[in-house]
This record gives sequence, structure tokens and C-alpha cells, in this order.
Amino acid sequence: MSPTANILSWYNLTSNLYYRYQSSELTHVQRDIFLIGSGQTRFGEWWHMSLQDLVQKAMDTSIENAPCTALDIDMVITANMLGELTNNQAHVGALASALLPHKPPALRIEAACASGSVALHTACAFLESERAETILVLGVEKMTDVSSEQITRALMGASDNEKDQVPGLTFPGIFGLIAKRYMYEYGLKREELNIVSARHHENASKNPNAQFRSPIAPESVETSPLVADPLHMLDCSPISDGAAACILSTKYKSPFQLRASTLANDAVSITDRESITSFSATKEALEKALKEACIRREDIATIEHHDCFSIAAVINMEDLGFADKGKGIECYTKPSSHTFNASGGLKACGHPVGATGIKQLIDVRKQLEHSQSRYGLAHNFGGACATCCVHILEYTV
Amino acid sequence: MSPTANILSWYNLTSNLYYRYQSSELTHVQRDIFLIGSGQTRFGEWWHMSLQDLVQKAMDTSIENAPCTALDIDMVITANMLGELTNNQAHVGALASALLPHKPPALRIEAACASGSVALHTACAFLESERAETILVLGVEKMTDVSSEQITRALMGASDNEKDQVPGLTFPGIFGLIAKRYMYEYGLKREELNIVSARHHENASKNPNAQFRSPIAPESVETSPLVADPLHMLDCSPISDGAAACILSTKYKSPFQLRASTLANDAVSITDRESITSFSATKEALEKALKEACIRREDIATIEHHDCFSIAAVINMEDLGFADKGKGIECYTKPSSHTFNASGGLKACGHPVGATGIKQLIDVRKQLEHSQSRYGLAHNFGGACATCCVHILEYTV
Repeated sequence: MSPTANILSWYNLTSNLYYRYQSSELTHVQRDIFLIGSGQTRFGEWWHMSLQDLVQKAMDTSIENAPCTALDIDMVITANMLGELTNNQAHVGALASALLPHKPPALRIEAACASGSVALHTACAFLESERAETILVLGVEKMTDVSSEQITRALMGASDNEKDQVPGLTFPGIFGLIAKRYMYEYGLKREELNIVSARHHENASKNPNAQFRSPIAPESVETSPLVADPLHMLDCSPISDGAAACILSTKYKSPFQLRASTLANDAVSITDRESITSFSATKEALEKALKEACIRREDIATIEHHDCFSIAAVINMEDLGFADKGKGIECYTKPSSHTFNASGGLKACGHPVGATGIKQLIDVRKQLEHSQSRYGLAHNFGGACATCCVHILEYTV
Repeated sequence: MSPTANILSWYNLTSNLYYRYQSSELTHVQRDIFLIGSGQTRFGEWWHMSLQDLVQKAMDTSIENAPCTALDIDMVITANMLGELTNNQAHVGALASALLPHKPPALRIEAACASGSVALHTACAFLESERAETILVLGVEKMTDVSSEQITRALMGASDNEKDQVPGLTFPGIFGLIAKRYMYEYGLKREELNIVSARHHENASKNPNAQFRSPIAPESVETSPLVADPLHMLDCSPISDGAAACILSTKYKSPFQLRASTLANDAVSITDRESITSFSATKEALEKALKEACIRREDIATIEHHDCFSIAAVINMEDLGFADKGKGIECYTKPSSHTFNASGGLKACGHPVGATGIKQLIDVRKQLEHSQSRYGLAHNFGGACATCCVHILEYTV
């Protein structure tokens, strides 16, 4: 028997001890981390721009509006999921660094669709370790140059290739199963689900960086082509090109301070989950984030959450604690004191996977400034929430 | 003009200021980081093992010989370069975490062939930030399931796809150009270069984890098939499957302490370099590492360095300061008080790219213990040294 198997059987006998272990949380080195600059390309189909063009554009814009120069950047952390498959380009960290005159230390983070937020999380660790004072965190993806079949297969890299890919699942298929089960367990109706994408499109109509700025009628969702029953095309976030960059610093200040950055994981394959209608990594990351920021959920004014499929939006509302189990849709149908995906979310902004987690933080920043609110939250996950990262941003005027 | 372009022209006018910037180095949070456990698969062609099998094997072995249990692992950092292309598997961080009962926070690092050491470097930042006390750092690659053409193309992801891939370069081609130029500049002879691979094979004959344990005659190198003039097949590190894992901890102790972990970058394309017969990222990472460890180069007893091609070994000797410029080969032809690639190096141990940087640290540990020496160094780079990481390990009896 392997040691891991040994430990597993031991663990089953001592789950009590395990929970005690879980609750003895680490406190980390405290440093004030400020979001001092940000920039993005509009998300969309950018056939005239290469991966490097997208990187350059987001990087330039972020430096342009930061109170530092390019030479103040101590490190570059790049988030990218699919470069090898879509552009035959790995080593995207070094590539981004090489666009700066002093070529600072660089690396690339990949955590499927959570790559962007995990890159931000990694930057926090480097800043707290004082190995860097100012870090440019960049996310990029160039997805539209390959066929739908190729990109669907590429995205399945986020799943467990031994358990999920062999039976022929795709991510629309996985979330289709999740939606079916959710409807069975909680009685959600197809026409209720329509409201999610319609709301995201409505929000995106006010966002110049969104891929889809045209409002859609709720009923058009279920009359759009069926992708994976019960999910239709307009339930799914699109394939997009785009890049987004944030500059985080402990040296330069701004009114926007990161109050929490947390990471949690779960089984990669949905076949290894106890439930597929709730994502434990979201719950864990959120709980740790509230503790890290020393705030309550009610203090959060604006939320950007990971609506890769309409059903995910419903589940997120519950896992993030803004709705009771089975009532997630009410965040979209009833008035709320919180704002959800005011940017248009992944559905309408587009979802260039490596860039999404970083774009969310940029949007939270904008929304806090616009509404003059104090706390905003970004929630980004990879796969069927096998990796989840939560960030809390504070705006102090 | 873009801001970066602006800054570039300004930088050309003020290079003096730039060098002052470079010399004002950060000091980071000081924590004692111990290597408390390690394990690896033998490198080779493992057609009967999947990517996940390799991960499981290395992980189990490392936990088995550590003074902690699996539940003490606060985080998993996985290094992998080619999973998407060779196994349609991204999200390898989450996949490794899911093999542990408590599924700790996880991410994947990619920095081409330097992925392993950059993962170790990232682990140091997380440990210093106190976001984790014990981290399992794992490197894995499964390269032999695809054709030579596919893997050669996949590895070119480490280059700049706009500058190096378009003219049809391959990595043997890039290092062939480097070797040609080196021979022209410094008069190195083809028969001298033979000695490098012969020595690595000789060393590997004593290493049970090496892919190639058979000694080779020096002259067999230049009679092996020509790959990219002047480099022959036996000048090149092989295509390999393998995994390696190290457990780093600030909580649990061992006689092996990480004294330095440094990262440096350079232009990705060799067309953007001032010289192709010296790698500035190696020099920078080494200099920073000696400073971080507060030791002199002479204090280092054993060195594992990145000999992806025989010519790289020669250049490394010079860039690491163990030979004068043009005399790197003498480290292989003359007696030395240092040990170089006693494991057999990439050439004879094999080079499953994501695992290499981690395997180097494991070998340095073994060599220090065996020789009862104090300091050892691991030098790992990606592409044509666009990313370079140096680690210094101290053995205290």
C-alpha cells in the first residue's frame, strides 16, 4: 500500500483530528499591498494581434497609469493556460519580462481558468516575502486562432484526463450535468436560468471592454443552439482573446489595497466529489478571505464572480453565502444590496482564461471607485472549481 | 510611441542610472528553510506509467522519507512544462493536490526547462511569507508518448515564437549555432567537446536513477548521428519521462538548509542577445545567490548544472565562474576541487523538463551527504537561458 493510501485510511479513522488540523490556520507576514496600476485590452476576437501584442498592450497600459516607471517593476508574474496549444508558446513569463528594458525575474502560473487570480496570489507571497516590492501581474490568452474543436479539447486540460476526458466529457458537458442535477435537487426552472445571461449582457452594455455589449432577451437564451442539455449557447462564456495586467506594490501606494488573497483546492474530477451542486473550494477560499480581511460578508459592496456557465453563477451565489442553498437565482431575480458581475461577468465580457482573474480585480477597482464603496470581492475558479482564489480589495478615499 | 518604447529610449540615455537601480538589491524576509524529504522516479521511458502515476510515485516517496505526514503539507507547487501537449493535461497543480487527503492549496509553475527550480523559488517566497510552513514541490514530465517531431516542436515553446520558430529553428539548432560561434570565438575543438558527454555518462553509471547508465567512449559522440552541426545526438540531453519531489519546510528541520534561491531572466530570443556564447541570466542568478548565502564560489563543493547540450556545459562553467572565458572545457579535462554533475547531468540522467530542477536539488543533497561537504549548488535554466534559477544547499552535520 502506498504511503498516501496508508494516510488515507488513517485519515478516515481520525477525521476529527483532521478538522482540528484544518482549523489551526496560519497567519502570514503582514504587508500593505496596493493595486497601483492596471490595464487591459478589450476582450474579443483579435485576429490582428499576436499573443505578444496582447501582452505588450496590457503591460503598457498598466505602467502608463501607475505612479512608477517600468524600471520599478521587480518581477513579472504571467498567467496563461493555453499558450502551448494555441500559440506553441510556453515560457510566457520570460517573454513578458523581455518586453521590459531591465528584464526582471519572471515566471508563469497556470491553474486553468483560475490562472489569473492564482498569479495575483503568488505575487502577494513574493511581496510579503520582500523578494519584490513591485510586481506586474499579467494574464493573457489568445484562443480564437484555433477551431472550436481544438479549443474545446484544449480547455479539457483543466479536467482530470484519466477520469473526465476518457468518457468524452467537455466542460459544457460537465456543467450540463451539474445543471441537470441542480434542477433535480432544487427545482430550478430552465426559464429562471435564462435571467443570468440576460443580466450579464445588460451589465456589459455599459462596459467598453466587454466582448458582447448587446443586451439579449431572457427567452433568447433557451432558443439559442443547445450545447449540452440543459445548457444552450447563451448559457456559456465565449472563446476570447485578451490580456489584463495589475501592478501590485508594497512600495508605492494607492487608495486600493488588497485585504485578502486566498487559494483553495478540491478534487479535479467531478466523479470524486460528494456533491456537484456546490463547490467546496469556493466556500473555503471565501471563509479564509473574510478572516484574512477581518470583515463580514455584508461589508462587501461589489462582487465579480466566475460565471463560466449560467449554472455556475447560481451556485456561486450560494457558495459565497449571498443566498441560501437552492436559492442562488434570487440574487438575479430579487433586489440586492450587493452588485454581482456589474462588468458583465465572463459571459458577456469574454473569458480569455488566463486574463479573467486579473480583469476581475480591475473591474472591482473600477466599481468601488464609481460607487464610492469600501470593499469588493473577486472570485475566480479553474475547472469545475478544483482551484479557487478569492481576493478582497479595499477602497479608502 | 508606447510607454515601454518611451522608457526604452530614456533608458538608453541613462544607462548609468539603470545600473545604480540594478545594484540596489532587495533583502528578503529571513526564514530557515529545510529540505526535509525528497523522492523521484528513475528518469527514462515509462510507457506503463501515466503522468498521474509519476506524480503519485515521486510524491509518495518524498513523504515516506520526511519527518512529517501528508497532512502537514500546507501547499503543493507543481512544475510542468508540456502537460497540455503531451497529455492534454493542464491544471497539474490541482491534480497533485487532489492526491492528498486534505487537498491543500496548489498551483503550477511553468518556466520551460527551468520550471522545477522556479517552483522551488516560488515555494521559498510562500514559506517566507508564512502563508505555508511545509510545501511539497513536485516536477513532472511525460515526454515519450509522442513522436520526436511533436516533442521537438513542443519544446520550441520555450523560445520566442515570433522570432525563433518562424525561421524554423529547433533547440538543437539554437545550441548548434551557439556551439559554432563558441568554436569560432574561442577555438574549442570538436574532439574536446566529446569529453563532456563521456564524463556525464561515466558519472551516471553510478546513479541508479539515471536514464543512461552505460559509459560511452568520447569518440562515439562525434560518430553518433549529426543533429545540428556541430552537435551530434550524444551532445544532446534525451527525451524522458520522470517526476521528482522535494518537501521544503520552515517548521520541520533537517541537516539540509536552503541558503539561497535566486531567479534571473534574459531576452527569450537569441536574436535579441549581445552575445550567444555567454548567458547573462546565469551570471546574475549566481551572483545574487552567493550574496544571499553569504559565501564565496570557492566554498561550493558540488555543482549540478544545466547541460541540456554539451556546449551549454562548457558555457555554464564560465558563467558560474569556475573557468575563465573560453576555458570552460578545462573543468572537464583538468582536475578540479569541485564536482560537476556527479549525477550524470541532464545528458545521462535524462531531462523530463519540469522535473529536472527538482532532481538537481535531490542530487546535490545526496552528494553533500556522501562527501560530507558543506555547500552545494543547483543551476537550472529554461530555453537558451532566458530564465535561470540558482539554489545553494547547506549540509550541517
